[in-house]
Amino acid sequence: MKIIIIGGGFGGLTAAKALAGTDADITLIDRTNHHLFQPLLYQVATAALAPGDIAVPIRSVFSKQKNVNVLMGDVTGIDRQGKKVIMSDGRELTYHILVMAPGARHSYFGNDDWEQHAPGLKTLADALELREHLLRAYETAENMGMDPGHPHEGGPGTASHPDTADLAPWLTFVVVGGGPTGVELAGAIAEISKKTMMRDFRHITPHMTRIILVEGQSRILTSYSPTLSERAKMSLERLGVEVLTEDMVKKVDNNGVSTTNGYIPSKTVIWAAGNQASPLLKTLDTELDRAGRARVSENLSLPDDPDIFVIGDAAVFSSGDGILPGIAPVAMQQARFVAEVIKARVKGAVPPARFHYNDKGSMATIGRGKAIAEFGRLKLSGASAWLMWSFVHIFFLIGFRNRFRVMIEWIWYYITFKGGFRLITGVNRDKQSKSG
Amino acid sequence: MKIIIIGGGFGGLTAAKALAGTDADITLIDRTNHHLFQPLLYQVATAALAPGDIAVPIRSVFSKQKNVNVLMGDVTGIDRQGKKVIMSDGRELTYHILVMAPGARHSYFGNDDWEQHAPGLKTLADALELREHLLRAYETAENMGMDPGHPHEGGPGTASHPDTADLAPWLTFVVVGGGPTGVELAGAIAEISKKTMMRDFRHITPHMTRIILVEGQSRILTSYSPTLSERAKMSLERLGVEVLTEDMVKKVDNNGVSTTNGYIPSKTVIWAAGNQASPLLKTLDTELDRAGRARVSENLSLPDDPDIFVIGDAAVFSSGDGILPGIAPVAMQQARFVAEVIKARVKGAVPPARFHYNDKGSMATIGRGKAIAEFGRLKLSGASAWLMWSFVHIFFLIGFRNRFRVMIEWIWYYITFKGGFRLITGVNRDKQSKSG
Repeated sequence: MKIIIIGGGFGGLTAAKALAGTDADITLIDRTNHHLFQPLLYQVATAALAPGDIAVPIRSVFSKQKNVNVLMGDVTGIDRQGKKVIMSDGRELTYHILVMAPGARHSYFGNDDWEQHAPGLKTLADALELREHLLRAYETAENMGMDPGHPHEGGPGTASHPDTADLAPWLTFVVVGGGPTGVELAGAIAEISKKTMMRDFRHITPHMTRIILVEGQSRILTSYSPTLSERAKMSLERLGVEVLTEDMVKKVDNNGVSTTNGYIPSKTVIWAAGNQASPLLKTLDTELDRAGRARVSENLSLPDDPDIFVIGDAAVFSSGDGILPGIAPVAMQQARFVAEVIKARVKGAVPPARFHYNDKGSMATIGRGKAIAEFGRLKLSGASAWLMWSFVHIFFLIGFRNRFRVMIEWIWYYITFKGGFRLITGVNRDKQSKSG
Repeated sequence: MKIIIIGGGFGGLTAAKALAGTDADITLIDRTNHHLFQPLLYQVATAALAPGDIAVPIRSVFSKQKNVNVLMGDVTGIDRQGKKVIMSDGRELTYHILVMAPGARHSYFGNDDWEQHAPGLKTLADALELREHLLRAYETAENMGMDPGHPHEGGPGTASHPDTADLAPWLTFVVVGGGPTGVELAGAIAEISKKTMMRDFRHITPHMTRIILVEGQSRILTSYSPTLSERAKMSLERLGVEVLTEDMVKKVDNNGVSTTNGYIPSKTVIWAAGNQASPLLKTLDTELDRAGRARVSENLSLPDDPDIFVIGDAAVFSSGDGILPGIAPVAMQQARFVAEVIKARVKGAVPPARFHYNDKGSMATIGRGKAIAEFGRLKLSGASAWLMWSFVHIFFLIGFRNRFRVMIEWIWYYITFKGGFRLITGVNRDKQSKSG
């Protein structure tokens, strides 16, 4: 039996691992060569962790699992009639069963031209570009601060004080989207802006920086209870983040962002809002919701095709408890369920009929040492939530090596407040960027 | 007294640190924001170390040294008359004393158009691009090996065997230049090709790979004694490297490299030959040698300008022992000497008149666990040399944190043979490259 799994994230990887020992020929396809532990991606972007700490080559994960072939490539379409996966190089791979876990990304609500001014944070490349951009923003502001008499874009400063109107956009950081990603990113940027970076710079000070979190709804973290939303907001404000709720973005350009409440001049706008499933789903010719996610039946297959499963952020599965959120535990449980269905088919046994999600709770950090966590009726916040968050994330990190390294990095960061990866490597020196 | 130091490598950094406590206003300028431990750069390129392990933000080094201001920027020229350093953004910085340590890079002997096909290894960006290129080369070859019937550039393979003529250029790695950099790189690539990578790939095997080291002279490592050169060559050959001596490159293109002995089809040609000092020296209007290095007097200043010092790879200093090589210990000793001269001037004392290099020997590794080392008449090779090499390099790495991390990485690599950083992050997805 030929099984193709598209996507090397939590869903795809878990499905392939759960099929260990099954008598089948599995091909796992991913656009990159690594599995990324996305919950910690914002830490790479803020120079607290290295890419190597949160990613593992997919081949390593399966080097001992002989029924899995790993293929690095781009899937451009699915031919349901011919039961084929079509690659960007023209190659066609046939399947008996297809498991699609291509994920989702942020969405610009139709304004895709905003992306060049307000990038998102989804891949390691995104994180490294953002890290570089942040570090360069500080360097630029420092240079301006060093030489007050020097003519800058926007007008000369006075001889004795740096021209703060010129500096301000370089030290104003805007995060759009008050979900977990936006909250964690805003908290981390506030921390490095107000604490870490300032030790190393002489001509810029914490009070010159602004970190602004823009959220369209009436509170941040709407997937959590209102009490925890409020506590998270207070933690962010204590870190120095300005939390603007009921504030929608109207326009983003090279110099800042325009919201319902006004214009914010900023050279760093990060997009962590909206949700759009992989465009690959459009080639399935199946019903998609407004976020582009595929509607699936109770056993996670397409309503009219029992041989195609869609799991993770790319799927929309509704049950008595409502629509399942796009988080890692959902993808992983769905993956294991689909693996059971497949194993039953291979053996000719009766497969499980209906997927049920076992909600073990969720967590988000706000800066170093603080977090919120919700498990059913148990709500935690503060340091205890952060400890639990740390342990859970380390536990789910793939690979002993990575667990060890992340632990070391966090201990170091906790003690010194210095992210260990504050390197500008010129990763995009050929690109035109706002900081250039 | 205003002192400007150009370059944040071994020379510039050591000079600035040696001036701690001196009553002067020091500005250290570097094009990047970090100090790079270049001897280990090839390990980042071969995925054994992370960038963060061998680089430290320059600001961190000087965060407690108040007489140093760090400026990240590009110097475009020196105005000797006006005693000014001119930056790419037009800014001009005045100096009383200028210390130039801008370094050197590889050279294409006038054939600069070869650079796009045969990049060098000088910066973190170079190392990350090379790492990405190497990993993609294996992925491409694996994909070709998976699907023998698929039409590839160059012609279709047979149905039952992968077309090895198509695969070969992807698994042929050519390093040009038999000095320490080339030797270390060739050894490391051979190691990952023949050992590490093969564990994770199913359709390519070690015997399909070729690693070729091309050297124009009659032996590799000409700066070492002939006995050690020979031992190094034997170690390389045991690792699977083909060492071609008395072989010069005539042409490099997108598909391979043409040498005096023939044409080698290869998608990976790395340039580690030639030596060319920073072009910034041309703006000094002073005598340069054929490699573009500035001739300096016995106290390392320009023959006709006692206020400009040139140290490190950018300087050519000759004494009774011959011309000093472009290695880190030379740059560091020169830096400390210049600092003494400057300190004497600040105090109004008599400065030291003549620089003398204290040759403590040199070392190079050949793969994991083997090295050669030469200290005067003491010649070591094999595992003992490698241990010494490891300890010396760890000792000179700046920052306890980096020392700890590199030690951990090496212990891990030594035990498992698995480089921990085999990640393709798409660092140059916008660039046209041979592997694309």
